[in-house]
Amino acid sequence: MVIGSNLQSQTSLEARETHELIGSDKVEGTAVYRPNGVKIGNIARVMIGKQSGKVGYAVMSFGGFLGIGEDYYPLPWSLLTYNPRLEGYEVNISDTQLERAPRYGTTESWDWNGRTRAVDDYYGVQPGWLT
Amino acid sequence: MVIGSNLQSQTSLEARETHELIGSDKVEGTAVYRPNGVKIGNIARVMIGKQSGKVGYAVMSFGGFLGIGEDYYPLPWSLLTYNPRLEGYEVNISDTQLERAPRYGTTESWDWNGRTRAVDDYYGVQPGWLT
Repeated sequence: MVIGSNLQSQTSLEARETHELIGSDKVEGTAVYRPNGVKIGNIARVMIGKQSGKVGYAVMSFGGFLGIGEDYYPLPWSLLTYNPRLEGYEVNISDTQLERAPRYGTTESWDWNGRTRAVDDYYGVQPGWLT
Repeated sequence: MVIGSNLQSQTSLEARETHELIGSDKVEGTAVYRPNGVKIGNIARVMIGKQSGKVGYAVMSFGGFLGIGEDYYPLPWSLLTYNPRLEGYEVNISDTQLERAPRYGTTESWDWNGRTRAVDDYYGVQPGWLT
């Protein structure tokens, strides 16, 4: 590692998280765990409400290998809690819940326009990101 | 372009933006323009309030070459408006404002903890992302 890149990665770390704020590029790639510490996936992206500026959903990738055969699970953001000990997000979703959860594959399209209500209903949450 | 990658890029496009939601990874890299159409930078990341789940700031990168010598400008998210014609964000900041604006370089650290108020004050906005 050269000095330049070392400096840069230190900077990025400092600039990407505080106790009040977190960078979108730090959320992406972060692991998602069950409360028992078992990893269930990684965050691919978060979806931001254009009007409200609020994060509405996290898209969790799960399964597959190097992006092939992965499934993407849209999860209401309010279900995720950051756990500093695990250095990842904790979400209380059972295997049974995950089996029937709304999802899409790498080669499928997902139209958020008609589907946010289905996701909210499935997990029993209110869409707080709208306003 | 092979069919597989074509399908995937179509999927990504569909999944990453709707009229109500936009993916964090789509915001990152998006160009920032003045109202007159002159490009002033690109969005490096957005900073999300951990408690509120609201986007507080966009970090705009400006100048430099291939990441070397770039400056990063934290901008209150409320100053940015998406302009579909320009396919980028529009922000009404003058050269003079930008010259004196809070910023940090690639090799500097930026402590958000003590600096959000300075950014808000500089641009004259209220920190709506806190709650």
